[in-house]
Amino acid sequence: MAEVRLQPIRIGVIGAGRCDPPLYQVAYDTGRIIASRGGILICGGLGGVMEGAAKGAFEQGGTTVGLLPTSFTSDANPYITIPLATGLGHARNILVVQSSQIVIAIGGAAGTLSEIAIALKIGIPIIGYETWHVDRRITIASSPSELTKLLENALETL
Amino acid sequence: MAEVRLQPIRIGVIGAGRCDPPLYQVAYDTGRIIASRGGILICGGLGGVMEGAAKGAFEQGGTTVGLLPTSFTSDANPYITIPLATGLGHARNILVVQSSQIVIAIGGAAGTLSEIAIALKIGIPIIGYETWHVDRRITIASSPSELTKLLENALETL
Amino acid sequence: MAEVRLQPIRIGVIGAGRCDPPLYQVAYDTGRIIASRGGILICGGLGGVMEGAAKGAFEQGGTTVGLLPTSFTSDANPYITIPLATGLGHARNILVVQSSQIVIAIGGAAGTLSEIAIALKIGIPIIGYETWHVDRRITIASSPSELTKLLENALETL
Amino acid sequence: MAEVRLQPIRIGVIGAGRCDPPLYQVAYDTGRIIASRGGILICGGLGGVMEGAAKGAFEQGGTTVGLLPTSFTSDANPYITIPLATGLGHARNILVVQSSQIVIAIGGAAGTLSEIAIALKIGIPIIGYETWHVDRRITIASSPSELTKLLENALETL
Repeated sequence: MAEVRLQPIRIGVIGAGRCDPPLYQVAYDTGRIIASRGGILICGGLGGVMEGAAKGAFEQGGTTVGLLPTSFTSDANPYITIPLATGLGHARNILVVQSSQIVIAIGGAAGTLSEIAIALKIGIPIIGYETWHVDRRITIASSPSELTKLLENALETL
Repeated sequence: MAEVRLQPIRIGVIGAGRCDPPLYQVAYDTGRIIASRGGILICGGLGGVMEGAAKGAFEQGGTTVGLLPTSFTSDANPYITIPLATGLGHARNILVVQSSQIVIAIGGAAGTLSEIAIALKIGIPIIGYETWHVDRRITIASSPSELTKLLENALETL
Repeated sequence: MAEVRLQPIRIGVIGAGRCDPPLYQVAYDTGRIIASRGGILICGGLGGVMEGAAKGAFEQGGTTVGLLPTSFTSDANPYITIPLATGLGHARNILVVQSSQIVIAIGGAAGTLSEIAIALKIGIPIIGYETWHVDRRITIASSPSELTKLLENALETL
Repeated sequence: MAEVRLQPIRIGVIGAGRCDPPLYQVAYDTGRIIASRGGILICGGLGGVMEGAAKGAFEQGGTTVGLLPTSFTSDANPYITIPLATGLGHARNILVVQSSQIVIAIGGAAGTLSEIAIALKIGIPIIGYETWHVDRRITIASSPSELTKLLENALETL
């Protein structure tokens, strides 16, 4: 296994399956930046923040992985290029986090909190925007432009 | 399927895999009360709060279900009467919560937070002691004796 | 952990979710024997062979664990005393096998084959009746009475 | 959701984690063909047949998804471009199958049989080479060149 790895960076984006247009836009911009830097978007594959991020990445020609809770790849939003049908229900949240090198949390309710908790447990860095601030290890962006900066810094560092 | 069901109440107890003696005692008392009322203890099957609760229930002759993260039933603490080897890692947290009619959170770090979040997501009632107060739907007991009262009330209501 | 363990034997019963009356009866008798020897029945919690086995064990006052594919404990058949809502879909098959000390396969189609395969992979002994004979490590009973004998022998040995 | 989808075909390749050089070559050729047709390889991410297929696809510039049984993306073989750390143990087998539009089974022991069984259960087409022929719905190739033809036909049809 001495070969050179050629793995793009994997960035998880988590957030609620339904969200208002401003958060959708933040998610969209996040996905766009990830793809424009050559990163792969990992998300839950459904609507809201997941769809916004996938759309942003997709429109940049990026690869978007959707780890779906259901057994049907057809449940993915139309911007998911690699739908994966876990059939695990809420347990798929763990896979999203565990497969990402950094997690961006945008808005979100209890489901997102479970993902943030797992990221804290495993030690995956979290950048958040309008989300749960339950631990000081979460870097909270106070504006969309600060989120962009934090994300760009992270993409350079990883 | 018109038969009478004879299912004992299932109470989940969640908390850290390592804890100090006072929390262990609170967990022990919680397990004891659950079993003395005929309830089944559902937990993660390992040490700390899980072991304290299992010991309390076990010594009352109760049934203690341990949903282990590993593939080995031998990883269960010695007070687990039904060890279940999920092999799911952190994803087993979801099973603990999803299978319980109420969840008692005692202490706990990020792993426990993920379980509380899933309980909030699904709508399982939570009683907590020295744990994450991230949502007002969590009933927080301010003392061990208040926890006992809240638990006893819940066991009568379910 | 020097304590004496008091764990009843755990026997998995696998087979199709729908079956004809003769196989249901075989499953029923299997469950009855398991419970009469103090064993715990582990199964998938649904209909057919799972229900037959659970009914047999339940009517002997036995403990019956149903590892359900769905997120709802109410999906269990009425003879399950401990319904566990895995929400994992087909992946719950692995939990049934992995948590059992021996597996009894009665009839069954592709789902049962997946469980037999996992039992072979892990090294859990399998006794089968009218089921997949894909490996010589599976002990096949040629009649219900032979199945009974094989099961009774296994229960004494474990 | 009226958008045009741009999802490449997803082909699962399953087989043992260790294999002899001839089977590795068959897996390699299979991966090469999948990637040369623009397909995405889905596999378990480890050694043997999984590595052979990933290497073949990788060297064609293809995308290779590894659904790992462990919680560590670093466990992937060096030809996996998207390692996903499921942490699910054997349960990850179901995800490999469920996310693929067709499954190619090359050699394999009990673990592969569990995946074939799940594919039969769900209705995913299977092409096999030197593998379990437990159901006539499995199309068995009698030679590597026949496997190539069957795969190419499948890739055109999907």
